[in-house]
Amino acid sequence: MEPGSRGAAPGGVSVSAVLPAGGSGERLGGATPKQFCAVQGRPLVSYAVRAMERISWISDIIVVVSPENIETMKTIIEKYGHKRVTVVEGGITRHRSIFNGLKVFADNEFSSHLLQKPEVVIIHDAVRPFVEEDTVSKVVMAAKEHGAAGATRPLVSTVIASAADGCLDHSLERARYRASEMPQAFLFDIIYEAYQQCTDYDLDYGTECLHLALKYCKTNAKLVEGTTDLWKVTYKRDLYAAESIIKEKLSQQVCVITSGKETLAQVGFLLPESLKSQIKVEAISKSLSKNDSRLQNIISGQCCNFVCVNDKRCAIQETQELVDMLEKSNIPLLCPVVLILVHLDTSESNSFSIGMEDLTTIKKFARETKRKNILVYGLLIQYK
Amino acid sequence: MEPGSRGAAPGGVSVSAVLPAGGSGERLGGATPKQFCAVQGRPLVSYAVRAMERISWISDIIVVVSPENIETMKTIIEKYGHKRVTVVEGGITRHRSIFNGLKVFADNEFSSHLLQKPEVVIIHDAVRPFVEEDTVSKVVMAAKEHGAAGATRPLVSTVIASAADGCLDHSLERARYRASEMPQAFLFDIIYEAYQQCTDYDLDYGTECLHLALKYCKTNAKLVEGTTDLWKVTYKRDLYAAESIIKEKLSQQVCVITSGKETLAQVGFLLPESLKSQIKVEAISKSLSKNDSRLQNIISGQCCNFVCVNDKRCAIQETQELVDMLEKSNIPLLCPVVLILVHLDTSESNSFSIGMEDLTTIKKFARETKRKNILVYGLLIQYK
Repeated sequence: MEPGSRGAAPGGVSVSAVLPAGGSGERLGGATPKQFCAVQGRPLVSYAVRAMERISWISDIIVVVSPENIETMKTIIEKYGHKRVTVVEGGITRHRSIFNGLKVFADNEFSSHLLQKPEVVIIHDAVRPFVEEDTVSKVVMAAKEHGAAGATRPLVSTVIASAADGCLDHSLERARYRASEMPQAFLFDIIYEAYQQCTDYDLDYGTECLHLALKYCKTNAKLVEGTTDLWKVTYKRDLYAAESIIKEKLSQQVCVITSGKETLAQVGFLLPESLKSQIKVEAISKSLSKNDSRLQNIISGQCCNFVCVNDKRCAIQETQELVDMLEKSNIPLLCPVVLILVHLDTSESNSFSIGMEDLTTIKKFARETKRKNILVYGLLIQYK
Repeated sequence: MEPGSRGAAPGGVSVSAVLPAGGSGERLGGATPKQFCAVQGRPLVSYAVRAMERISWISDIIVVVSPENIETMKTIIEKYGHKRVTVVEGGITRHRSIFNGLKVFADNEFSSHLLQKPEVVIIHDAVRPFVEEDTVSKVVMAAKEHGAAGATRPLVSTVIASAADGCLDHSLERARYRASEMPQAFLFDIIYEAYQQCTDYDLDYGTECLHLALKYCKTNAKLVEGTTDLWKVTYKRDLYAAESIIKEKLSQQVCVITSGKETLAQVGFLLPESLKSQIKVEAISKSLSKNDSRLQNIISGQCCNFVCVNDKRCAIQETQELVDMLEKSNIPLLCPVVLILVHLDTSESNSFSIGMEDLTTIKKFARETKRKNILVYGLLIQYK
């Protein structure tokens, strides 16, 4: 399914998500908890929220943060325009935080928040920014069938058990074991029951939700093979990696928009053809003035390079509509959006000039959009 | 111990290293095996070799590569000026490759290579570029005492065992287990004996050297807590992370060199003082013409920013000596080295000019060094 389009939840169940974001980030070696560290200028948690938010069939997204970060989180939600998000105060451990998140659906302790209880609840980490809808969907479907499910990955290193003297006791046969990753999903009643039954010891020292479902509800979670991008940002090097991945994603795509006229359609065809060996190209030949859901999807997919081919001397209005769509998407908050306006002069006249008035209008427009982090460039090409 | 200085091996043992570099890099998703992927323009394996080479008490470094990459590896060794390295043809699995590497010290099957058998052999991965001498030293000492030793790290994710139906069987209590990392070290006779006894099944399907020492020689390896930088480059994101870490390291340090004269010494003191809040500063006040082992150490530590303060109008000769040292170190192959020549004019004359001849000499010098990736900039300051 294209990101941003409206679809039914897998298996027709109601689904919500809980994102524990209360960690202190000790292993990162910095003062800022890792979920609030900026990656390309945007806090990591915002990427994780966005990954959930893009999935239209997730009703509510509960972000659980420590008391001192509630305001920070609310600011992030406002700044990046996140929707369907409720911020909940966490506990002193991961499990206590997740439990608080779940209570929003079931317990009038948080009555001011009480939300519609979902059939399936997703639990995902605030520090895993790249989960794809396909993975979430598989985990949700498996949870519906088995009661619990979680993404796993092959082990990267051999796992060993040490003896009391600090020496090797035994090593595990790598192929028999897996790393348990996120997202996980549960029938709400199962995981909520597990947390209610849970001992203080488990709440304080445990970290694995699948284990709770097994121990307290005899539910053996279905394990779903995850993709490489599911990894958890743990160390500083992971922040570097996340940044590079985001940069790569951002520069990988260009969208070529041409109006439907015949001469232009030809260019609209030739340009993507010549570009596609170097970059992922989306070509749209409709007029911008129509509410184009395909364009909306491309923007939701974080495309930030656009080439608009037109034959009107100064297509400011059409461009303004694109700028509006981009602004609403919050992409320009994340990175500069580059918008190249290509004006094809198809007239028979030999004059290749552009009027001072048009020039002033375009310059003024470009200055204004630049403040919004949208960089507009104009190109005039004589085309016969 | 400062990198590059000559020191005795820990515990006075003789030590050599084997680096298996025969992997195919399937998990990276590219055509180039990860150990040959360029990070900041230099193949990953070269960083790992360098990490071993910087440790003066490691006698021989055996790099084991698949037959088709032997020439590539030899080219890398020549290009980056690696010393004490022997290239050996690998087998079809990791263990078979390591075994081939060990045979160079013990078996006349490779008689043309036969090298002095070390008491302790280090096994390290070609795709772990950042190991520090301190870690290697601890592992070697522990191996001398216990027969085998290996670096470990805490688990990042919970490890789970799956049942035949693809569902969770049980999860491991995270605190009881560790990830086995590299480097590892062994008394040579123990690990060689283990490989000789080893079944074909273990040679083909095993990956863990500590396991072989335990299984075939009843040697329980000592586990040594490793640092966060020991991780293995496995996925593309790890290459990104490695690149960012290297970039960060390269730009973190500046070396200020001043001649011993009184006026200059004052500047040589003030400049580092004002810089040290922003960057790691090494200040050297000796004359460059002396063979300065401290400067040599700084260069070995991959410093690539230098400020040379002098009061001679055109200190080309001194600078040439620094350029020679840098060239020998191969640092300019890795990244541009920036050399700022600050000439302090302490004469009483009001003339602030520099003769055309001097200028031409400096420009010519800068042009030549630029070809070697050393960027020389001149600065003339009137100082009274």
